[in-house]
Amino acid sequence: MPRSIITLTTDFGASDHFVGTMKGVLLSIAPQAQLVDITHNLNPFEISEGAFVIGQAYRYFPKNTVHLVVIDPGVGTARRPILVQAGGQFFVAPDNGVLSMVYSREKPKVRAVTADKFFLKPVSHTFHGRDVFSPVAAHTARGTPPAAFGKLIKDYLRLDLETPSRTGKRVWTGTILKIDHFGNLITNFRMEEFEDIQTRRFEMAVGTRRLWRLANTYAEVEPGELVLIAGSAGFIEICANQASAAKLLGCGVGAPAELTVY
Amino acid sequence: MPRSIITLTTDFGASDHFVGTMKGVLLSIAPQAQLVDITHNLNPFEISEGAFVIGQAYRYFPKNTVHLVVIDPGVGTARRPILVQAGGQFFVAPDNGVLSMVYSREKPKVRAVTADKFFLKPVSHTFHGRDVFSPVAAHTARGTPPAAFGKLIKDYLRLDLETPSRTGKRVWTGTILKIDHFGNLITNFRMEEFEDIQTRRFEMAVGTRRLWRLANTYAEVEPGELVLIAGSAGFIEICANQASAAKLLGCGVGAPAELTVY
Amino acid sequence: MPRSIITLTTDFGASDHFVGTMKGVLLSIAPQAQLVDITHNLNPFEISEGAFVIGQAYRYFPKNTVHLVVIDPGVGTARRPILVQAGGQFFVAPDNGVLSMVYSREKPKVRAVTADKFFLKPVSHTFHGRDVFSPVAAHTARGTPPAAFGKLIKDYLRLDLETPSRTGKRVWTGTILKIDHFGNLITNFRMEEFEDIQTRRFEMAVGTRRLWRLANTYAEVEPGELVLIAGSAGFIEICANQASAAKLLGCGVGAPAELTVY
Repeated sequence: MPRSIITLTTDFGASDHFVGTMKGVLLSIAPQAQLVDITHNLNPFEISEGAFVIGQAYRYFPKNTVHLVVIDPGVGTARRPILVQAGGQFFVAPDNGVLSMVYSREKPKVRAVTADKFFLKPVSHTFHGRDVFSPVAAHTARGTPPAAFGKLIKDYLRLDLETPSRTGKRVWTGTILKIDHFGNLITNFRMEEFEDIQTRRFEMAVGTRRLWRLANTYAEVEPGELVLIAGSAGFIEICANQASAAKLLGCGVGAPAELTVY
Repeated sequence: MPRSIITLTTDFGASDHFVGTMKGVLLSIAPQAQLVDITHNLNPFEISEGAFVIGQAYRYFPKNTVHLVVIDPGVGTARRPILVQAGGQFFVAPDNGVLSMVYSREKPKVRAVTADKFFLKPVSHTFHGRDVFSPVAAHTARGTPPAAFGKLIKDYLRLDLETPSRTGKRVWTGTILKIDHFGNLITNFRMEEFEDIQTRRFEMAVGTRRLWRLANTYAEVEPGELVLIAGSAGFIEICANQASAAKLLGCGVGAPAELTVY
Repeated sequence: MPRSIITLTTDFGASDHFVGTMKGVLLSIAPQAQLVDITHNLNPFEISEGAFVIGQAYRYFPKNTVHLVVIDPGVGTARRPILVQAGGQFFVAPDNGVLSMVYSREKPKVRAVTADKFFLKPVSHTFHGRDVFSPVAAHTARGTPPAAFGKLIKDYLRLDLETPSRTGKRVWTGTILKIDHFGNLITNFRMEEFEDIQTRRFEMAVGTRRLWRLANTYAEVEPGELVLIAGSAGFIEICANQASAAKLLGCGVGAPAELTVY
């Protein structure tokens, strides 16, 4: 029997006891699991950023991986914990939309987790990562069947993060999904839906700037020049060579980006 | 035979070769170990913060876990390396009080590590994490009996971090143990010792503010309002909803907090 | 058969999907591997810092460890991916000098990786960590022989990072290789080549300051005093006790350091 893999994606930061505590819970229940940190540095409460990160990373993991995703501003309220089967893998998260970019690529089976016999008691009001989500993930990794945790639901929360709005005959208005570590701005324009920018004239308006060039690699760009790149995540990115496009533009997550294709 | 688990808690940061080097030493001696990062971002030299973090996380790990805790301003001086058995687990650390919150919950057996045959030679003056603590942790994880490392001692350093002082008939003065990633202030008032604030009128004075309310969840708090919460670590916390209480109050670790119960 | 170990050293930061994605690729190909983070916080594009970190950490890992090192400002250009055998271990990296401090201690066998059947398709222009380096590292960890990836080369890029220049009869000019988490400045003066500073009068000029003292431990240094220490990495370091020498001096990586030995 192969080891099971459990990944962790949270906004808990890497300076507290939170992550270590969750790992202890996971390994107490599933001692053979391989724990893999995706990130603990999501911006607190930024559900769309979490949706992007797990939506990118999960697809490269093997079948039966369990992804634990805890970005949970509603902790202690009535928002439901969910267990999702999608793409041959498992996802444990609060039902707040953080799995939306998994839903958009897969046919998910979503369950509301109600079997509180799996939870650590007493369940705290503020740390369900420890008391609720980690035990459910670890028991899933050990092979407890999904149906043991709760019933299938249809009314789970799904955010539409990946569809720019058509705002003119030749104009689409999208947004910045993520600023990466290098300061590249990842837009929500899917390259495969806008691939005619490879051959047609276009204009991307972002911040106070207008961009007209699509480059293949960072290296072909002049220092300080801003260009579009067909990013590795499948979206159009706004980049500079060895500089932060985000700083040059003064733009953050959620800023609008307007594409006109002529 | 199950894999052994070795956790790491340090103030080495995550940007240098220090942590990777220690992991290499651990895996060279104990190749089957599962390494688990608790945190490497303790504030340099803040022993009480380290005591809080390991004191929270360890209790969720399975029996026989080895916890390596290196926050060591006295490296190179006569402070002793110690190996502690407590709660069915092992702890390797400098004898500077960083395990005090383990001692307060368990009946510890503490040994001064003197058997330098386990150390990497030559022992450097500045990196005992690599040369002393990691080899001792790895050999412990492999099953070397504790007595092989040195003799039991009674005069180990124990800090009293969890006891607010009674400073008036109805008044206790405590302190801030930890600022967490969300800006919540974790005090050293144990909720179970001050549970009458759930039913009686009280006042918590911290910074220039006075607080009179105990909330159950962040979600029931108005934006910008400061309240007390019975935190998941067992202590009273000072919190704001989706905002940093530490920034609102301008308070840091070690600041006083005065509780009056009427 | 023991588990194989794969370490990761990158400038990708710990806040994005990049590292998690690479780990997914690694575990999909080599599910039994133990993944070990060295660091993901190298300064973007600082090849000499990466060379220092991996050059320090690798030597403590067991035989057959695979080290994946991705600091790659030339991604998408003609720079070659390489697979290196050195010291009984494996290294997968771009051919940009980042392995120079491995080369200087070992007799490396360096191959240009050309067998693109191992790559993830389509190979993106901007994320070879995912599409090229991770699959090569994982297949190496699974036991694919090095010759399957490409031919031996002699013209790999090797930077001379560890040799101060002789700039006077008694004067050598070196540089700052790395600022560590505590603010210590690690110079490129190898202690074993300059060990006569233990017995002879010397002067180290760095920033606007001149230093004349070599100390054994941080603890014997007055607060605020700057001294030299024989660092645990084998180089002379410039340190202060419980303070940041880098802040006191206002110096960064690449700053000159001039040693005169009388």
